[in-house]
Amino acid sequence: MRTVAGVIEAALARLFGESIKIAGAGRTDSGVHASGQVISFSVPRPFPPERLTLALNALLPVDCSVRDAAEVAAGFSARFSARERTYVYAVLNRRPRSALLTRYAYHVAWPLDPEPMRAAAAHLIGEHDFRAFSASGPEANPSATVRRVARLTVDSRGGLLRLEIAANGFLHHMVRIVVGTLLECGSGRRSPGSIPGILAAGDRAFGGPTAPARGLYLAGVRYADGYDSFSEPLPFYES
Amino acid sequence: MRTVAGVIEAALARLFGESIKIAGAGRTDSGVHASGQVISFSVPRPFPPERLTLALNALLPVDCSVRDAAEVAAGFSARFSARERTYVYAVLNRRPRSALLTRYAYHVAWPLDPEPMRAAAAHLIGEHDFRAFSASGPEANPSATVRRVARLTVDSRGGLLRLEIAANGFLHHMVRIVVGTLLECGSGRRSPGSIPGILAAGDRAFGGPTAPARGLYLAGVRYADGYDSFSEPLPFYES
Repeated sequence: MRTVAGVIEAALARLFGESIKIAGAGRTDSGVHASGQVISFSVPRPFPPERLTLALNALLPVDCSVRDAAEVAAGFSARFSARERTYVYAVLNRRPRSALLTRYAYHVAWPLDPEPMRAAAAHLIGEHDFRAFSASGPEANPSATVRRVARLTVDSRGGLLRLEIAANGFLHHMVRIVVGTLLECGSGRRSPGSIPGILAAGDRAFGGPTAPARGLYLAGVRYADGYDSFSEPLPFYES
Repeated sequence: MRTVAGVIEAALARLFGESIKIAGAGRTDSGVHASGQVISFSVPRPFPPERLTLALNALLPVDCSVRDAAEVAAGFSARFSARERTYVYAVLNRRPRSALLTRYAYHVAWPLDPEPMRAAAAHLIGEHDFRAFSASGPEANPSATVRRVARLTVDSRGGLLRLEIAANGFLHHMVRIVVGTLLECGSGRRSPGSIPGILAAGDRAFGGPTAPARGLYLAGVRYADGYDSFSEPLPFYES
């Protein structure tokens, strides 16, 4: 399968004449927009970062691009040095679908009330064992599924619902299961009060469905020393 | 060639079992986003507007959708009853290209200064003969190329430049030639003071290049009696 990592490694191999492995800050499954993704890699010889950005954009396919490049300390890893990752999830909430947003937002045709979604979100903020919100199999180490959610907001504007979640890390499909569960609260199918019980049970079967990849953006990554990324423009209404 | 009008007329033909001609409020050349387009047509038998929206969306291809439908007075024409049309043009102004915006904004890699663009825009606001900003051949009737530009703004934010132009009507390629000319002012290649001379000469050869279709959106249409349309969400930064 063609992947973002694969096309970037192919471009780096053409540029440097040897195989180079990259590390990415966050998972972006097929259909997820890696709009604020950060990668790190070692180069076999010095290469000015501004030139690297332009050279990679010339070698990459049209649906993959690099926004910026910077030299970092030797021990830096885009994956392991990350302190916080932010994902954005876009929902088009109205009866008719939108041709322009087909690949950029999840279309929910029935009405969603953001208030119970915010009430449910409040239960997820902070440090919890999120194994109920993970697509992975059971972990031997119980602490392996503990994550700290720093922020989880639900904004509604002009027919679009925008969820933003920031955490020190995410389990497999965690954002999409959290969103799927909050959407059930928004439609009244599930009570926000059920969230603590899902966390306590630690069983994937208790959570909501996995929301589709197309609404999901890896919007930004924070590091200790100012290597923060920020998202590409997102397909939302201007105020 | 496959056109928006063509796929909508095909869907209407399937729905009503006979050929139905539509009238569109504004031109959207290939690659232009018809995000606020309005069409009108007559139906051979009564059909509830809400059901019409859903029925057309079920019959239309995934890259074409209808947002709303309403019954209008018999004499109404989406084209001839329109009082004002608003187009938006999006420019990504930074060195590296953006994969996510490839089809949604024109990428200009050299720096653009919005100030001279605004100075140039001021010369275009009001009623003028815009034949120099038209791709059509010479008109016999001199008043046929007079249009009234009600608004022409240039906003810069987060690497994106957003131009908005509203007028009672537009000549063929008028918005794209206006944008191409303003972009030359933004890069310093052309002086804003040259605009009155272009208008006075009335010669297409004096204007700037035609900006590419992919940055252009037909954002909205105003009618006399509250049938205003408004744009679908656009791929811009949120504030």
